[in-house]
This record gives sequence, structure tokens and C-alpha cells, in this order.
Amino acid sequence: MKKVYLDNNATTMMDPEAYEEMLPFFKEKYGNPNSLHDYGTQTHKALRNAVDTLYRCINAGDMDDIIVTSCATESINWTLKGVYFDKIYTGEKDHIITTSVEHPAVSATCAFLESLDTKVTRLGVDGDGQIDLNELKNAMTDKTALVSIMWANNETGTIFPIKEAVQIAHEGGALFHTDATQAVGKLKVDVKDVGVDFMSFSAHKFHGPKGIGGLYIKDSIKLTSLLHGGEHMGGRRSGTLNVPYIVAMAKALDNATKFIEMENVHVRRLRDKLEDALLSIPDVAVIGDRKYRTPNTILASIKGVEGEAMLWDLNKAGIAASTGSACASEALENNPIMEAIGADVELAHTALRLSLSRFNTEEEIDYAIDEIKKAITRLRSISSTFAYTPSWHKSGL
Amino acid sequence: MKKVYLDNNATTMMDPEAYEEMLPFFKEKYGNPNSLHDYGTQTHKALRNAVDTLYRCINAGDMDDIIVTSCATESINWTLKGVYFDKIYTGEKDHIITTSVEHPAVSATCAFLESLDTKVTRLGVDGDGQIDLNELKNAMTDKTALVSIMWANNETGTIFPIKEAVQIAHEGGALFHTDATQAVGKLKVDVKDVGVDFMSFSAHKFHGPKGIGGLYIKDSIKLTSLLHGGEHMGGRRSGTLNVPYIVAMAKALDNATKFIEMENVHVRRLRDKLEDALLSIPDVAVIGDRKYRTPNTILASIKGVEGEAMLWDLNKAGIAASTGSACASEALENNPIMEAIGADVELAHTALRLSLSRFNTEEEIDYAIDEIKKAITRLRSISSTFAYTPSWHKSGL
Repeated sequence: MKKVYLDNNATTMMDPEAYEEMLPFFKEKYGNPNSLHDYGTQTHKALRNAVDTLYRCINAGDMDDIIVTSCATESINWTLKGVYFDKIYTGEKDHIITTSVEHPAVSATCAFLESLDTKVTRLGVDGDGQIDLNELKNAMTDKTALVSIMWANNETGTIFPIKEAVQIAHEGGALFHTDATQAVGKLKVDVKDVGVDFMSFSAHKFHGPKGIGGLYIKDSIKLTSLLHGGEHMGGRRSGTLNVPYIVAMAKALDNATKFIEMENVHVRRLRDKLEDALLSIPDVAVIGDRKYRTPNTILASIKGVEGEAMLWDLNKAGIAASTGSACASEALENNPIMEAIGADVELAHTALRLSLSRFNTEEEIDYAIDEIKKAITRLRSISSTFAYTPSWHKSGL
Repeated sequence: MKKVYLDNNATTMMDPEAYEEMLPFFKEKYGNPNSLHDYGTQTHKALRNAVDTLYRCINAGDMDDIIVTSCATESINWTLKGVYFDKIYTGEKDHIITTSVEHPAVSATCAFLESLDTKVTRLGVDGDGQIDLNELKNAMTDKTALVSIMWANNETGTIFPIKEAVQIAHEGGALFHTDATQAVGKLKVDVKDVGVDFMSFSAHKFHGPKGIGGLYIKDSIKLTSLLHGGEHMGGRRSGTLNVPYIVAMAKALDNATKFIEMENVHVRRLRDKLEDALLSIPDVAVIGDRKYRTPNTILASIKGVEGEAMLWDLNKAGIAASTGSACASEALENNPIMEAIGADVELAHTALRLSLSRFNTEEEIDYAIDEIKKAITRLRSISSTFAYTPSWHKSGL
């Protein structure tokens, strides 16, 4: 059976080159990098190269820190809780601003900090899934410790105006964190240009392994540790270094960065082809202007087609897709982004997310288009809950 | 050149079987386990088997939780900070008891919690590196939230009386956590028998990969999350599951558990042979009674031989050893355990830790004995700081 993987915003296949570079560090060069003998020191060159690559790929400066963590979720928890301890627990500040469409790592951490008497403002989004910078300006107070806005949304692909948001936060005396999990490896990410103080990312979104990520910290500014312990990473994040994954993450990011242009030509072209095909079907909508989205993502709403049923049909045809974030899939809830943009409950049940990678081929996309059309036809024909009638019938056309 | 790895308390070579089991989950079965399509669900059987293995190997019950984390350092930070939020931040309790010889993951986290107005008592150790249960009894107050005592010490290998300590903690109404990083895979670990509430462990100490570990939680008791976010692991620890490492950790633990008897015969015999050879050299002492130590560990003090110089000589001969915890090696400080047991500064500079694994051979140990003897002779002959004189000379013998 044909297999087409269109769920790259959930996770990705490992880059074969990153895979090969990682392997010697499991059974051959397995020493603890902190050890003083050859088993330890023979990892140093690879680690140095890896770290240099990370700095180069996001244009971090010598005075900045990039700390390797176990995933973006850890980086995000670290930033939000670190700022809580540094600014809010101390009484200096009392307020965090975020958006209503963040990944659960941000939203659940904010909810936890609210339970510790932190004030949290959640900016809304419009029908395109976009925030309004005036709302951010108005939400700022002199007690705002941190603004945390994702670089690109995991479900819609919507890219947020981070650079402008950073300026507003800084003018108001607040720090700025961005969850760049869906941006790094898909968009040009230049931390110096946008001026963020903290940036979280995860390797498995750009063809690195699952279970490793990073936190960029501008000017190595103080941030209370989340993992206290040994002297690893300059004492900022303890735990024995995961050498193979650090090597793999750097190689994967290096390749992804090299392919940013390709992402914006090849991947975007395939995505647009798939999107155009979807939009040619009656009563299918795609959320957000494609100019302001990551080049690989489509969040569609297909009237009369329940998202789970759609996934089932596509899966039988060998196509992997999603109804939204995999991080919320277990709960089988409505797509929360669909709710945030004001879609009604019926529409929120019809979300289908398709997310491509540079490993997808035109042939795969053509196959996916055919199968998606078949599935929509079949599911609309048997729909009992929706009793589907094309809207041009309702409108008398 | 011959290579002999005797630094297994710092980290270990990956078990070749665990390595092989892990590989398909990088480029073939790479789906996110939370996804609803085949790429996701094809990981489920392996994950289920892995989790079953973890439960079986430590004798956890159906009502208990074993949550996969990124390392023991994360598990330890989670437990201590979770109990802080659940019991101390709320005002219910105000006190934590630990020991003076814990890994930095415990000691640094306790120091952080002290900065948040938590009272911390650190139990001392005697010349064998052993704690006194009466001191624990006397330290307990009705405000003690948690007792955290390591199962076995990373430097001396000293095994602590965890079962008895748990009883004392529970009688006083406190929870009990053990850092079992150096016990799991080396000793029979039965959580039901000892009755601990929380137990932290790291895969890379038992021939699993670096960057993964676990936290055992008895009866799935409440513990405020360290990583808030998605619904992973029942909402207790968020972050996309590191499928390859989970599979590898379980296989490594399964094999290590099968080899516990071998560890106690083969490894212990080699360790004792090495220890006897060391003790046959004048003015060499080994810390702790070998009956109460993990079967793989020797912490020796070699009078007149600076630890770093010893490592250098051994490294030239292809032998990997340590002056103590790799987690503190970067700082080149005195061995803190040597200080805790009351050794004078001069002696603390002479620490040499040798830690074996089941992959060491008798031939390797014989080679190591020869090279260690040569190194001691050479270094004592050129010692300027110590001006070494055998103690039987001083005592007039």
C-alpha cells in the first residue's frame, strides 16, 4: 500500500544524515562528556561542532546562550516558571501576556502560574487565526513580567508578528519568549533580528529525534533553573548530556536550514497544489491567508465530514493526517484553535490538518488529493449527523 | 592500545540488544504515539511492552505510576519541587530531610527550595559513608514534608537502609523519595518491598541511552507537574514521547535485571579482585565496608597520589576512571563525599573511583591492576606536593 505522511507538524521522520551522525555515540564514543578521560573527551569535538551549528542556524551571538533541553515543552516550562521565580514570586511583577492559541505547554503552564496568583492575559485571534498588536499594547501594564507568543501556530501555520510584538513588550519593560517549535526549520529564524529574549524549539519538528530541544537565551540573562543539579551547561540545565541526540539535532537543523529555500519553493508549491485542490471542493474552507502561514501547513474545515472519520478513511488509504495537535489527540476534543477563531462547534468537528515536509513528493500529493476527494464524497454520502446539503442548494443556487 | 572502561557510575556503554531494538523507531516507525494513524499506532505495542517491562523490573503495582522523564535529574527536581508546591507552598509543611552525600540534583534542588523558605536538614555520614537512622528519627518533625535519601551512593557505592528509613518517614507523616540512579540495574530493586513513594532513575547508568529516565510514583499519588502541557503520560509529564529511548531503556533494564545475579557474582568477584590488589599497596584505603556497597564500585584514597594525575596516567594506558562524580568533574573540586566522611583535604585530593560493569572481563581487570600499580609507583616517586613517605617509615617500622 502507498504510504504518505502528511502529519509533519506532529512529528517528523529523522533526517537520514542526522541519523548516521548520531549512531557512533551509543556504543563507541559513549563516555560522559564531563569525564576527564578519552571516552569523555572524544565527544567534545562533535559537541562543539553541534553547538556551533545551533548558534549559526538561528544567528545567535557569542554572548547568548543556547541550552539543550529534553524538548520545547521543557524549554517553555523553564522560561515561564523561571520568570515566575525571578520576577513574580519576588513581588517585582505580577502579569504574563500570552495568546489563546498557544500549544498546551504554554497554556497549561500559564494556568498553573495563575494558581500561584499570577495574572494572565490571553490575546484573542481573528478568523485567520491572527493576533492584533493593539490588543497586546493595551494589555501591557508596568507589572507585565513576560509576553509569550508563538512564532507560528501548530495547527493553522499562522505566522505571528514576533518582531513587532517584541518591541511592544520591551517598550513596556517586559521580557519576551516565543515558542518557535513550528518555525525553526520551516522559516528563516534570526534571533538577533527579531530580538526575542527566550526562544523554545524541539528537534523532532525538523527531522531530528524526539526527546531533545533547546532554549535560546539572549545575553545569557538570568533565569532560575528548572533542572537544578550538576555543573552541566554552565550550571543552567543539569543532567548528563544526551550526546547522540545533540549531534543529531544540530545536523537536522543544519540540513533544515539549508533547505529553507527549498521549503519555500518545493514544499510551498506542493502545499498550494493540495490546498487549491481542497478549495475546489464545495464547502471546504482553509483557515488563514496562505501568505502568512508556514509553507507546509493546511488547516481545513470540510463541511459535513467529521474529522475523526476523515482520518480513518485517509489512514486506510495509507495517508497520515491529523484533526489538530497530536498533543491533544488522546482526549478526542474539539480542535481548540477552531474554537479560538470563533468557528461553531459543528465546524470545529470537521478540522483536518495536513502538514508536509521536504521529503514529500509530487506523486504523493497527487495521490493524497485523489484519496481526500474520495473520502469526502463517501463520508458526505453517509453522513447522518450532518445531513449534508451543499450550501449553494441552501442558498437557492 | 588496550581500552578498559572503569567509569560505569558516570555513564555506560549502550547494551547492544537495547541499541538494536531502538533503531527502527527513528526512520521507520517514527510517528507520534498520540496520533491516530498507523504511523502513530504502530508504536503502541512496543511502548506497552516497554512500560510493562519497567513495572516488572522494579515490581511496581497496577495502581502505581512509572512516568518516563528525560533523566533522573528531572525526576528528582520534579519530586522535590512537586512536594514543595503540594505541601510547603500551601503552608501545610515546611521541612525536607536529606543527606550530605546526595547527588547535586538533590542537593542543589534542596538549596533552591531553601531559598524559598523551606527548612532542609542534611544527615551526616560516618567514615564508611553510612547514615545513622537515629539521626533521621531525631530530625523528623510534624512539619516534615519529604525525606529524600539515595538508595546507593554514586561515589562510594554505599547502600543506604532505605526500607527502614521509609518506615521512619511514614511514621512521622512524611513522604519518601529515593534517588535510585546507582541502584537500579545493579541491585535488586523492589519498590513494593521497600515502600518508597517516589523513586528516580536514569537509563544511562544501566546501559540504556543518555537523556531518558523515570519516576516511580506509588499509588499514583498527586504530585504537581514539572513539565505542564499536553495530555502525555496521563497529563503528568508533557512532551512528545521519545519512543526509541523508551524502548531502549526498557530493554536495557530488562537485561540488567536478568544480570543482577551475575552482577553479584561476576562483577563483584572482579571488583573484589581489583580492590584486594589496591589494598595490598601501602597507604591505600577504600571507603566503606564492601558488604554494604554496590558490587561494582570502589572509591579509593591513594596517599601521595593526586587524583587528577592518576587519571592522566591511567588514561594514557587506555583506562577510564574518575576522581568522583562526573557531574562535578568540570569544576575540578575536591571530592565532596570524601569531605562529607571527614577525610582531610590532602586525602580528598587523592580519590580514585573505579566502577565496573558486566561488560568488563578478567583480563581487563588484570591489566588495570598492573597499570594502577605502575602509576602509583611513578606518581609517588615524582610527588613534590606530598613528599610521599610510607607511613610505616613514619611510625618507625
